[in-house]
Amino acid sequence: MYSFKNDYSEGAHPNILRALAESNNVQQSGYGDDMFTTQATDLIRRKLKNQQAAVHLVSGGTQANLTVISSVLKPYESVVSAATGHINHHETGAIEATGVRIEAIATEDGKLSPELINAFLETVEQVHMRLPRMVYISQSTEVGTHYMKEELIALWNFCRRRDLYLFMDGARLASGLDASDMQFSDLGKYTDVFYIGGTKNGALLGEAIVINNPDLQKDFSYNLKMRGALLAKGRLLGIQFTELFKDNLYFAIGAHLNKTASRLAEAFHQNGYDFLTPSRTNQIFPILPYAVIEKLRENYDFYIWKKIDSQNAAIRLVTSWATQESVLLKFIQDLKACSAGSNRV
Amino acid sequence: MYSFKNDYSEGAHPNILRALAESNNVQQSGYGDDMFTTQATDLIRRKLKNQQAAVHLVSGGTQANLTVISSVLKPYESVVSAATGHINHHETGAIEATGVRIEAIATEDGKLSPELINAFLETVEQVHMRLPRMVYISQSTEVGTHYMKEELIALWNFCRRRDLYLFMDGARLASGLDASDMQFSDLGKYTDVFYIGGTKNGALLGEAIVINNPDLQKDFSYNLKMRGALLAKGRLLGIQFTELFKDNLYFAIGAHLNKTASRLAEAFHQNGYDFLTPSRTNQIFPILPYAVIEKLRENYDFYIWKKIDSQNAAIRLVTSWATQESVLLKFIQDLKACSAGSNRV
Amino acid sequence: MYSFKNDYSEGAHPNILRALAESNNVQQSGYGDDMFTTQATDLIRRKLKNQQAAVHLVSGGTQANLTVISSVLKPYESVVSAATGHINHHETGAIEATGVRIEAIATEDGKLSPELINAFLETVEQVHMRLPRMVYISQSTEVGTHYMKEELIALWNFCRRRDLYLFMDGARLASGLDASDMQFSDLGKYTDVFYIGGTKNGALLGEAIVINNPDLQKDFSYNLKMRGALLAKGRLLGIQFTELFKDNLYFAIGAHLNKTASRLAEAFHQNGYDFLTPSRTNQIFPILPYAVIEKLRENYDFYIWKKIDSQNAAIRLVTSWATQESVLLKFIQDLKACSAGSNRV
Amino acid sequence: MYSFKNDYSEGAHPNILRALAESNNVQQSGYGDDMFTTQATDLIRRKLKNQQAAVHLVSGGTQANLTVISSVLKPYESVVSAATGHINHHETGAIEATGVRIEAIATEDGKLSPELINAFLETVEQVHMRLPRMVYISQSTEVGTHYMKEELIALWNFCRRRDLYLFMDGARLASGLDASDMQFSDLGKYTDVFYIGGTKNGALLGEAIVINNPDLQKDFSYNLKMRGALLAKGRLLGIQFTELFKDNLYFAIGAHLNKTASRLAEAFHQNGYDFLTPSRTNQIFPILPYAVIEKLRENYDFYIWKKIDSQNAAIRLVTSWATQESVLLKFIQDLKACSAGSNRV
Repeated sequence: MYSFKNDYSEGAHPNILRALAESNNVQQSGYGDDMFTTQATDLIRRKLKNQQAAVHLVSGGTQANLTVISSVLKPYESVVSAATGHINHHETGAIEATGVRIEAIATEDGKLSPELINAFLETVEQVHMRLPRMVYISQSTEVGTHYMKEELIALWNFCRRRDLYLFMDGARLASGLDASDMQFSDLGKYTDVFYIGGTKNGALLGEAIVINNPDLQKDFSYNLKMRGALLAKGRLLGIQFTELFKDNLYFAIGAHLNKTASRLAEAFHQNGYDFLTPSRTNQIFPILPYAVIEKLRENYDFYIWKKIDSQNAAIRLVTSWATQESVLLKFIQDLKACSAGSNRV
Repeated sequence: MYSFKNDYSEGAHPNILRALAESNNVQQSGYGDDMFTTQATDLIRRKLKNQQAAVHLVSGGTQANLTVISSVLKPYESVVSAATGHINHHETGAIEATGVRIEAIATEDGKLSPELINAFLETVEQVHMRLPRMVYISQSTEVGTHYMKEELIALWNFCRRRDLYLFMDGARLASGLDASDMQFSDLGKYTDVFYIGGTKNGALLGEAIVINNPDLQKDFSYNLKMRGALLAKGRLLGIQFTELFKDNLYFAIGAHLNKTASRLAEAFHQNGYDFLTPSRTNQIFPILPYAVIEKLRENYDFYIWKKIDSQNAAIRLVTSWATQESVLLKFIQDLKACSAGSNRV
Repeated sequence: MYSFKNDYSEGAHPNILRALAESNNVQQSGYGDDMFTTQATDLIRRKLKNQQAAVHLVSGGTQANLTVISSVLKPYESVVSAATGHINHHETGAIEATGVRIEAIATEDGKLSPELINAFLETVEQVHMRLPRMVYISQSTEVGTHYMKEELIALWNFCRRRDLYLFMDGARLASGLDASDMQFSDLGKYTDVFYIGGTKNGALLGEAIVINNPDLQKDFSYNLKMRGALLAKGRLLGIQFTELFKDNLYFAIGAHLNKTASRLAEAFHQNGYDFLTPSRTNQIFPILPYAVIEKLRENYDFYIWKKIDSQNAAIRLVTSWATQESVLLKFIQDLKACSAGSNRV
Repeated sequence: MYSFKNDYSEGAHPNILRALAESNNVQQSGYGDDMFTTQATDLIRRKLKNQQAAVHLVSGGTQANLTVISSVLKPYESVVSAATGHINHHETGAIEATGVRIEAIATEDGKLSPELINAFLETVEQVHMRLPRMVYISQSTEVGTHYMKEELIALWNFCRRRDLYLFMDGARLASGLDASDMQFSDLGKYTDVFYIGGTKNGALLGEAIVINNPDLQKDFSYNLKMRGALLAKGRLLGIQFTELFKDNLYFAIGAHLNKTASRLAEAFHQNGYDFLTPSRTNQIFPILPYAVIEKLRENYDFYIWKKIDSQNAAIRLVTSWATQESVLLKFIQDLKACSAGSNRV
């Protein structure tokens, strides 16, 4: 049984394990005040071409989202998100638990646009509704799509005009950037805050929050400590992000994620299947007859994402830093065999 | 420069790194639904002699404290803690950030007793004050002291009678248990909830929350996810706690922590110094003339804990799983040399 | 200029002012421990035919909603509401400010049904989404519609089966009950909690929270005090609810509200206008050409509720306890005159 | 039985009831957008000699405290209060319920000073403790004492230097100002925010929050609505504060409160009793033998505040806007009679 359920089924990229072993006996200060965190911060700033960015390493994506959003917004302000956005759909109300309201916008493809946001803003009534103050987007999105550079710039300009902060969730940033024409350094220019996902991109755990907007940087560590997000052995995160960024390993992993996923997507396409969303990232959502799904499940583990009709459902396949060529070849062969015998609609 | 600042200056016990490397390519489900977490849970339950205990692995101590306390208490209830308790003194109001009030009790030695709690309860007025519903204690305490078994049982019985939950913070549990006549299995009998510290006892990170009281077990995972405390790669925590508990490594580390600290304490004693608290754990607080402190600081890093008078201050020295014999010998030698030349009071 | 903007434009029913004056010098205990609050509680319980109901008097509707919801739900649970529900649409995120997530359901007419709730429940994923635990409905709804008795019973039975609490917002309960075949005493049988609106039904201020479910009654006053909802001079609320319930004044006001609104509705109907919703309560939403709206605005104040197309919009007219016959006659005359000259579509 | 338990045992000053009756049928907009609230605001600003002050009327003191503090502080900041301060002692953790931590300082007389605050600030550690950002004081205090003008100025200057906001709780401001050499207009100069208590000074309910600091004024109404503190019939508050301030009724009530209390205090003094605190406000705390207390309780209701020893306790007597000369004379006579027969210590 091989799992395509997600991109966090395996451990860490070998470089990370090696670095952890090598540094194990070096004494360092705690709570992020260690030389590895400093190295990681320097590397990220350099690649971002923003020496003033504040970098904070935390354990996970929900933690990154909740610490950022709850520290940026005033109690009576709200954050605008696609209804499919991770904060709205899959974080057990972590944002609301900090007192913040999410304004959920229905979208076609998991992506927000100035038009969608503006249509919502026109319905907002003073005092009796929250004051929207932040826009939350994900790169790549929770449904496999991604933002192109001009889409990001359009959102950024809109947010500037309307006094909104722009926050990008980068839980799957390696894949998102690889799929897009956007450069990593664009994130330093066209967002107020974003985070660089580690957990889903080869780390044992960890996300790097990057605060570009100087107004939002002050005292941020207090928020981390207060939310239980400041690790005593911060070195564990510093070492990992140093490895991911020192030889562009992060971007290489992003390319691997998308290349392996596109190999799978191509196979579905060749067998005549359609997709729920036009994904070029490491999450693909082919639509298959239940009969094919059942056969595939004999050897592969994955989520059935959405029922389409009585005959078909969309499944989700996700590739990881560890997905190997041999697995792809075997899957493609199995898919062909399954599909041959099915009554495709 | 050698650091005695804390017990999280180094990486992880070698067994842990080895286990992480060996398991790295095994695919596992996320969010705690992996075989390593199951193994760790089984080991902990067995040693606890409580098969019904719920075990949840989280990243850090503040996270453990805030998820437990905020999920057990109703909004209008409060938790009673020593004023020196970690939740009251050193967690940036993490508990209050979840809406909970801490009732801080002044103590002599960082320890609560039925008498101290009762004296507070007698001042509580209905409706206009919170309803105290939980007692929080630390084993070992933040000032190096520890609870003996009969003290724990007395607290437990008092809490039962007064409808209070008893929660033990075990950030330094290995050291606390080693110093006490309390057995690990006593924690399964005489607390409602406690947690087993990993970070300060040889793990890279991680604390194991153990919920003995069945009433408090239901749906606890929702709280973890909601507070950003549920790691996608939960395996990272499962592997570590499996290592710590499979050959009693955890207890061996506890013994090492206290033995090394007592070697240091003995040296201070022999050189004629007194202590701020009567610690038998891995945190000791000798009182030294500033001149001696300054000389020691040339080669050692540690906190100056409390000014005693114009001539003397208490310092804090902490030993870790990695503290070596050679370092102890060197320190003892240096202390003797420093002390010889000082004007001891 | 006469205002039909809302049902809280005037002061209080004369009986209330008289009772306040008469009782002014009587000394009473504070914080709800006064004889007037006891009287009001007894009257409400008697009319409800539920002697075990807990009754708590608070200042306003948002306060009633937030104290009830935040005290009933555990942190990781959520409340299901129509998207148009007051808690979701018009309370500035008051519910989220207490950490609770609202699951907003799109509806045709502002009303929830077992089918709508069930469709949502089927999408809920364990641990990664909140656990829905309460259903919130309004009688009458925010768009002027109301629940019939069998609809309430269907919701009640559904909630019992699915382990959901049923909470009814009665900010406009007098009007809602008058429009429905539901009896006041049905609220004691088919809800876990509800509140009786005073502010919009002739009181200066005040809502009476009624907790039928004994499990939800314990320690509720603590929550009130903690949220700033416990008035020192609780007598002010007790006196008002005593007046409203002692001679069925509350129900008489409900009849007046609906009768006056239906007079207006009838006039719109006779002049050939349609309505946004089929309201029989004290809020009506006729659809008028902008030209007619403009003429009416010369003498009347009201909200333009929703743009229908380039020619027409729905307005909202609300009657109050103080709406007089002479005003109705004048408005009906004016409407006829306005309509005569307009290009009706 | 006559009650000296508190200053909210009766209804409202007759002027207020008269104004409510006279204005009852005037239609006004809701939520504070009415002409009475505008009048009250203008009167308060004028007497304060601060035309830029923002004035917001709310229902009660706990509500005033929690809306102010939670809207001014960032999540990781804290408020410094005397341990006896109302927010720390008697509000059921209302402040903590909004996520804010209170730093409670032990005092002799319920009053904070630059020295006491500074001693606390010196113990604050970065990141691991909250950042203190506001000082909360009460005028008069919860133990009957009051601040003189130079004490307020000293606190104000200290707060300016240390980047702290100064917030004054004026639940008993009428009495506090009358006892002090401080002018009402000083509050516009030497506080960032304060509130004018209505409930304990002759109103049915209501406190007027005054925000002097322009940085703290923006969007405050959103916070009120979000916390359930914005009354639909805001006119009820506007009318009352207009009455209280239009002919200096508020200050006349303050004088009455203190004069009646001092009459009582003088009687205790003449009968040879001592006091728990040196109060010149409308709360006095005489220390009496239990025998005398018991006799007084036959005809008077009051709190036994604090046990002094096996023979004596301090009681609390509070006068109100409604306390009459005849009652004072009767009490003084009764006290003399009781005392004559007691074994005074």
